[in-house]
Amino acid sequence: MAAAAAAAALTPATPLRFKPYSTLRFLSFYSKNPITPRLFPPLPRRPVHFQSTFHRKRCFCSVISAALQSGEVKKTEFREKKVDEMGNKVGEFRKKVKIADIKGGPDEGLNRVGQTLVVMGWVRTFRAQSSVTFLEVNDGSSLSNMQCVMNSDAEGYDQVESGLVSTGASIWVQGTLVASQGSKQKVELKVEKVVLVGKSDPSYPIQKKRVSREFLRTKAHLRPRTNTFGAVARVRNALAYSTHKFFQENGFVWISSPIITASDCEGAGEQFCVTTLIPSSREAADSPVNAIPNTKDGLIDWSQDFFGKPAFLTVSGQLNAETYATALTDVYTFGPTFRAENSNTSRHLAEFWMIEPELAFADLNDDMACATAYLQYVVRHVLDNCKEDMEFFNTWIEKGVIDRLNDVAEKDFVQLTYTDAIELLLKANKNFEFPVKWGCDLQSEHERYITEKAFNGCPVIVRDYPKEIKAFYMRENDDGRTVGAMDMLVPRVGELIGGSQREERLDYLENRLDELKLSKESYWWYLDLRRYGSVPHAGFGLGFERLVQFATGVENIRDVIPFPRTPGSAEF
Amino acid sequence: MAAAAAAAALTPATPLRFKPYSTLRFLSFYSKNPITPRLFPPLPRRPVHFQSTFHRKRCFCSVISAALQSGEVKKTEFREKKVDEMGNKVGEFRKKVKIADIKGGPDEGLNRVGQTLVVMGWVRTFRAQSSVTFLEVNDGSSLSNMQCVMNSDAEGYDQVESGLVSTGASIWVQGTLVASQGSKQKVELKVEKVVLVGKSDPSYPIQKKRVSREFLRTKAHLRPRTNTFGAVARVRNALAYSTHKFFQENGFVWISSPIITASDCEGAGEQFCVTTLIPSSREAADSPVNAIPNTKDGLIDWSQDFFGKPAFLTVSGQLNAETYATALTDVYTFGPTFRAENSNTSRHLAEFWMIEPELAFADLNDDMACATAYLQYVVRHVLDNCKEDMEFFNTWIEKGVIDRLNDVAEKDFVQLTYTDAIELLLKANKNFEFPVKWGCDLQSEHERYITEKAFNGCPVIVRDYPKEIKAFYMRENDDGRTVGAMDMLVPRVGELIGGSQREERLDYLENRLDELKLSKESYWWYLDLRRYGSVPHAGFGLGFERLVQFATGVENIRDVIPFPRTPGSAEF
Repeated sequence: MAAAAAAAALTPATPLRFKPYSTLRFLSFYSKNPITPRLFPPLPRRPVHFQSTFHRKRCFCSVISAALQSGEVKKTEFREKKVDEMGNKVGEFRKKVKIADIKGGPDEGLNRVGQTLVVMGWVRTFRAQSSVTFLEVNDGSSLSNMQCVMNSDAEGYDQVESGLVSTGASIWVQGTLVASQGSKQKVELKVEKVVLVGKSDPSYPIQKKRVSREFLRTKAHLRPRTNTFGAVARVRNALAYSTHKFFQENGFVWISSPIITASDCEGAGEQFCVTTLIPSSREAADSPVNAIPNTKDGLIDWSQDFFGKPAFLTVSGQLNAETYATALTDVYTFGPTFRAENSNTSRHLAEFWMIEPELAFADLNDDMACATAYLQYVVRHVLDNCKEDMEFFNTWIEKGVIDRLNDVAEKDFVQLTYTDAIELLLKANKNFEFPVKWGCDLQSEHERYITEKAFNGCPVIVRDYPKEIKAFYMRENDDGRTVGAMDMLVPRVGELIGGSQREERLDYLENRLDELKLSKESYWWYLDLRRYGSVPHAGFGLGFERLVQFATGVENIRDVIPFPRTPGSAEF
Repeated sequence: MAAAAAAAALTPATPLRFKPYSTLRFLSFYSKNPITPRLFPPLPRRPVHFQSTFHRKRCFCSVISAALQSGEVKKTEFREKKVDEMGNKVGEFRKKVKIADIKGGPDEGLNRVGQTLVVMGWVRTFRAQSSVTFLEVNDGSSLSNMQCVMNSDAEGYDQVESGLVSTGASIWVQGTLVASQGSKQKVELKVEKVVLVGKSDPSYPIQKKRVSREFLRTKAHLRPRTNTFGAVARVRNALAYSTHKFFQENGFVWISSPIITASDCEGAGEQFCVTTLIPSSREAADSPVNAIPNTKDGLIDWSQDFFGKPAFLTVSGQLNAETYATALTDVYTFGPTFRAENSNTSRHLAEFWMIEPELAFADLNDDMACATAYLQYVVRHVLDNCKEDMEFFNTWIEKGVIDRLNDVAEKDFVQLTYTDAIELLLKANKNFEFPVKWGCDLQSEHERYITEKAFNGCPVIVRDYPKEIKAFYMRENDDGRTVGAMDMLVPRVGELIGGSQREERLDYLENRLDELKLSKESYWWYLDLRRYGSVPHAGFGLGFERLVQFATGVENIRDVIPFPRTPGSAEF
């Protein structure tokens, strides 16, 4: 067989080959030499036949298992390879068993009591008592740590004793899961063996003492190792995934709207310029201004730029999404968008993620119904799937956040017209800082009064805004002075979602562009959608980080995105 | 009740209110006046009580249904509103029944024969015979059209007769689903009523005659209405969703890596500069060079830029993902990345989406196993969920693509070392354009020989490359001259995935930075991950558009992303 394969390797169409005998050799070797885990360092000196992984189960970190086994194999196993022996099957991939899997079930791990388990993670705290040492280990799969209990009998205890297993260190722990006598957890790991994987320098900045969020923003690479930022990351992930689930289950197609655009029909808000005229390497810091290509008139010569004209970072994928909605019926975007606004507030980022669904054959009622169903779906998903994290937020970040979310998931959403909202505000027994009159934009104080007070914490959609305060593409209502716009207001956050029915009538849209002195030529492709098989359509936009704030109660938007970009700050 | 609610509206905590009697009025009205759909134009003149949608089922496009019903309500229904009547419940959102839902089942729609259905979509073709007219309507939910058959009895037939219902027009059709006598489909719609929603100007550029893909790139806003681009959009969507599903089901957390970065530790490949020094409004086209802030030395004054220093578009989220992997164990990114390379090829985009998983407590074997399982999962997902689209690609784009994908989903993936791969190439009975020797990077011809010829169409992972041709962060193997890198090669595409185990040993990594004359200060936070609880970790990167090319057989990468960005081109 080996000879046949050797010949075949040199011809065009050979069958798949594996080393014909290495498996047998491996198995017979290990039947004589059962795997006895050894201390972790030195790190992997993998014997050559470990390259072939198909003969053993993946044990979640074969680098560690290989290290544990190192030295078991004699050097004489090394030998020259023949072509016919090249090519081994790639090993099997299996889901890691993490702390969340162990403790996350309905009985919080009691069903696994008695099992021998391995936990790999980072030491959160270390507590030595007279005869027993407690290690709290976290692997990021859950807020919960695994409490590891050991005494001096445990293999590797010397490393614990020597102080190497300190806060921030990474370890591999093997032990038996037992019922815990503590009140904080149902189970704990009775350690038989501990391996220090990576020590933590004493300068580790995230020690047990509480550190401020401002400080942690300067340690954005380490802050996910804290309770708060770990929980934010998991809830953010749950919101993202349930966003995809909601739209996919409802027949929407995910569209990647472009990030860089030289199209002339953006322009809402300040934009970042994207260019290669400024040296694109790391020497940018020393770029002379006069090295920038210019025309005879001293203007920047955009024809020499990468795209041949000025290009910018997108502020919204909506117009692009409309092109796909008018072909595929229902689509959504989920991608980054940008604002070059010099806003140093707790609600603004220069780079943030937006979700922008667009529905064809749909009007504002469909749009509101979709936005409502969407928000209720993702909130329900987080309440159901992130219980522990939500309880953490409820205790430490915003008391009552769970009740607030339950309200959103269960209560009916209310709609009322802008005109009614103004009437309601005018009749309210309250002095607002910003005076209320028809035609003004609603301020945060107005929005929060409506949702928090007038409608008792129920999300409210205000619709049919004056056309003068809304974008050109929104559909004019029959009254001629309002448009089919809607803003969803939620307690604490205010506006969470903004949407509209789009103007699908070519003549109305062209008139509106003229009124606003916008160039019809620039919008040629957007107008084409109304020229060829136009349909009523509607959509909305949701700032994803606002949603994470809403769901977690975290006050500063810089703390709900891994690496926030704000004026003067684009580190990491 | 109304009076109580009126008082409550003006106090802080009121219960939720709805108009107490409008529902009853509405229901009694419609019980006396059953809904009789009317011709579509004029577009929505919605009577006031349509603002309240909770008393009727959403019928997939209430703008159309409202239009259909317009005129049924007397103007006298309008009246002044009281505060207590403000606020209606938002209507229910339901999944639209689309053509894919009707025809997509195992019996291709036969189970629905006899049902009265409404289809909304765009006319693909129009064929008038002596007594009967055939309309092919597509709503983008599937490649399949709904064949609509009508004779002159159908309501609205005059619009068909007048030629308004032409290719590209959008229509609303109601009829009875019947078994089709044609061979192309099992069912068709016997039309009772047709409504022209939006006519199509005769200049519609996508007529029945086949148009080139080059031409369609200039019509990126309309090309999703073609068979090819509709199918690409659906398969792309399926690949994206199954990507999320795979990682979520395996306990990975989605991380949004930053798009804009002023961090000094990128720099692989040419980067786009992101700036607000050049006027960020639409007047950029007339920007004088000397308006750019400069220092006394004539250098660009970056301190005045938005981020206070030069900032760029990211080329990879890997380093950022590593920070989260070393906190949450397993993470992945899925977001846009950028290259300012002046490559006008069918394989390069300036803006493309990348998937970058990062696994902690994992080595190269785990990484290869993950990449293999991932690719097999998404390919299987597409084969199972996009059958019709895949048959289209198999017939019209790349004959054999389904077999090729089935191979990937079912065959074992092979791994071999770079050293073995070189040996294999040297022994191959083939003259390569690029000579082969140890230390050279593998060229496309080599990669395709390995996967297509030597291993007979089986995906092959080449691992353990010479360190000199790989990135600084890859983990040095014990031989001191190779690193734990891997490239997955697949037939037709060549390299689809590239990954590596990361150097987790602080001293090795610092030495490597020194060797390559990279600044350790710039990498301070990346080095911190090795300073505090370092763990073996590994990951890979996958260009999402390459994956779409791989799965569909579409040759030019510009045709697998909605709005391609390439040198000189950032339209739409």
